[in-house]
Amino acid sequence: MSEMRSRRILTTLQEDGRLVVELAEENLPAPTGHDIVVRVEAAPINPSDLALLFGPADLENAEYFDGHIIAPMPEGARRAMAARVGQAMPVGNEGAGTVVAAGEAADAQALLGKTIACVAGGMFAQYRTVDARSVIVLPDDATAEQGASAFVNPLTALGFVETMKRDGHNAIVHTAAASNLGQMLLRITKDDGIPLVNIVRSPAQVAMLKDMGAEHVVDSSSEGFAQDLKAALKATGATLAFDAIGGGPLVGRILHAMEQVASDGQDYNRYGSNSRKQAYIYGALDTGPTILNRNFGFSWSVGGWLLFPFLQSVDAHVVERMRDRVRSELTTTFASHYKARISLEDALTRDAVLTYNARRTGQKYLLLPHG
Amino acid sequence: MSEMRSRRILTTLQEDGRLVVELAEENLPAPTGHDIVVRVEAAPINPSDLALLFGPADLENAEYFDGHIIAPMPEGARRAMAARVGQAMPVGNEGAGTVVAAGEAADAQALLGKTIACVAGGMFAQYRTVDARSVIVLPDDATAEQGASAFVNPLTALGFVETMKRDGHNAIVHTAAASNLGQMLLRITKDDGIPLVNIVRSPAQVAMLKDMGAEHVVDSSSEGFAQDLKAALKATGATLAFDAIGGGPLVGRILHAMEQVASDGQDYNRYGSNSRKQAYIYGALDTGPTILNRNFGFSWSVGGWLLFPFLQSVDAHVVERMRDRVRSELTTTFASHYKARISLEDALTRDAVLTYNARRTGQKYLLLPHG
Repeated sequence: MSEMRSRRILTTLQEDGRLVVELAEENLPAPTGHDIVVRVEAAPINPSDLALLFGPADLENAEYFDGHIIAPMPEGARRAMAARVGQAMPVGNEGAGTVVAAGEAADAQALLGKTIACVAGGMFAQYRTVDARSVIVLPDDATAEQGASAFVNPLTALGFVETMKRDGHNAIVHTAAASNLGQMLLRITKDDGIPLVNIVRSPAQVAMLKDMGAEHVVDSSSEGFAQDLKAALKATGATLAFDAIGGGPLVGRILHAMEQVASDGQDYNRYGSNSRKQAYIYGALDTGPTILNRNFGFSWSVGGWLLFPFLQSVDAHVVERMRDRVRSELTTTFASHYKARISLEDALTRDAVLTYNARRTGQKYLLLPHG
Repeated sequence: MSEMRSRRILTTLQEDGRLVVELAEENLPAPTGHDIVVRVEAAPINPSDLALLFGPADLENAEYFDGHIIAPMPEGARRAMAARVGQAMPVGNEGAGTVVAAGEAADAQALLGKTIACVAGGMFAQYRTVDARSVIVLPDDATAEQGASAFVNPLTALGFVETMKRDGHNAIVHTAAASNLGQMLLRITKDDGIPLVNIVRSPAQVAMLKDMGAEHVVDSSSEGFAQDLKAALKATGATLAFDAIGGGPLVGRILHAMEQVASDGQDYNRYGSNSRKQAYIYGALDTGPTILNRNFGFSWSVGGWLLFPFLQSVDAHVVERMRDRVRSELTTTFASHYKARISLEDALTRDAVLTYNARRTGQKYLLLPHG
């Protein structure tokens, strides 16, 4: 193969404080060594992609024209993102497609014509050059659409379970549990016999997870939330939570309910129970401040959780076991659902942006760069 | 010795929601086995004692009469303290005094006439029965006043250093750094060559710590706080903080400044730096909510820290080494300062209560139960 032309989405924060998102052409050189060129056929728009693509830019008051978006960025955010000013950044953590060119290395050549998934970044593009050694080869009967979300959500859900074991807990609380990730975690924990408390934000989501066989589903929008949560924690013994929301009082309410369960029937201790209560914040669906009332004693911890540092922190054989499970359960445990499929061009239109950037649970978009 | 009469302070949350704090008499039986009876000569009123003694009771609108306080307790706090309703609880974590009676065991008999310090609870009393094996025998030339605070602050300050080593950090940030505890930590870290960032709340406190030889003192009440903090973090490389305040934005501001230092000159990463940033909240000088703006990436953790669980988590020889150091540096590194000395009776008067319960840094009271 000689040089190949490809279109991709770039995001640039300009010196003047405006964010420019645009479709741009690039020339891909012929691959060498272990490199392969993937014809990207499907790539999910994940919340983590939106953070880079738009961040807190004002998309209501942006200009949309001809494959371009120009949006004002709030002053405070500009300071926080000073390090990206002037850099045209490719977007799209993960995706799947067909290998159309390969370097001379045997492992690259072996992939020619295969459907693969990868988490190389820059996947909101028609073609992408990636390292052959970092991909998952999809099963023969799997489509690129089925493999598009094979990395981030599946490994995150499996990572929660591994973290639970590492930290010595026996059950998990999960917020935004109706998400694709939440549904995967539900299926994993059912298969593995791990108690799971699903926290959702509407009665419709309660019904959906109950239909999927979830035992403990509590609705944070309901009046009985505090009591329902406490009952579910008591039934499961969960002392570990993973939270996708970040902002607001929810993490603190979970820790408080855990503390109530731990101190039920115990003597009064002004320092609280000895029960080790841990919450990890892995997302920012609400970018507002986390509010901790600290009505949960002194035996607690809240921290950030990210997939890639986690993967680096565990043994290679654990990661390999996780990837094997994703491959073999790709269309069952790890099946993803999308609200809509959209082309690169349409992804930059006002209606589409305002819809998928709202990050409503269960409303994920799938990019089809050749659609 | 036959039975002995003693006066002590008790705190009771009544069914009707009123908190009663009172001086009450008790009969101490003659000690047996390893027990000894201590004539309590000095006991500090620590913030942790105030949490049990009064909690969030409304002391402005309390009745004070004849060694009694009757104060309304806010509704929310009553629910949180349901487990203590109806129990008359003794108060006073630690103190020092003379051993005046002992059980027949050799280790108890050996202490007769000695001046000892202990952390037995119930030390706001004239006499207290404690286990001989749990005390520190003070050096011959040390007074009970010098030994009254030999446990909580010294072991907490040493515990911060041990925690730093265990968690793999190399420097410490400390808030409310002008406190007795903060002064001890300053002396320890100077002796041990550990960089320390002292955060205080007034120019007078800056001057005091500078006079004591502190290198990095930043004033959270000053306009330049954010810049000063960042400079001190850069100079020390501190990625670990201990916070006595709890409520408000300070912990988040410290983590944000640590993140700024870690990402200075690095490529933009929307997940933040890989620098592991840890804050422990060990006090609650501000009982309001902790506000975390999460402008510090995903590599962070905030948790509770308590002395006794910490001591239980480390090897016995570490605790013994810590206690030996307290004994040998009792009147230097671990010297405490008090704003006032006060009798049991006077400690329950309105003026005294409103003063020492304000928990102003450097305004600690020392109870003299025979004063």
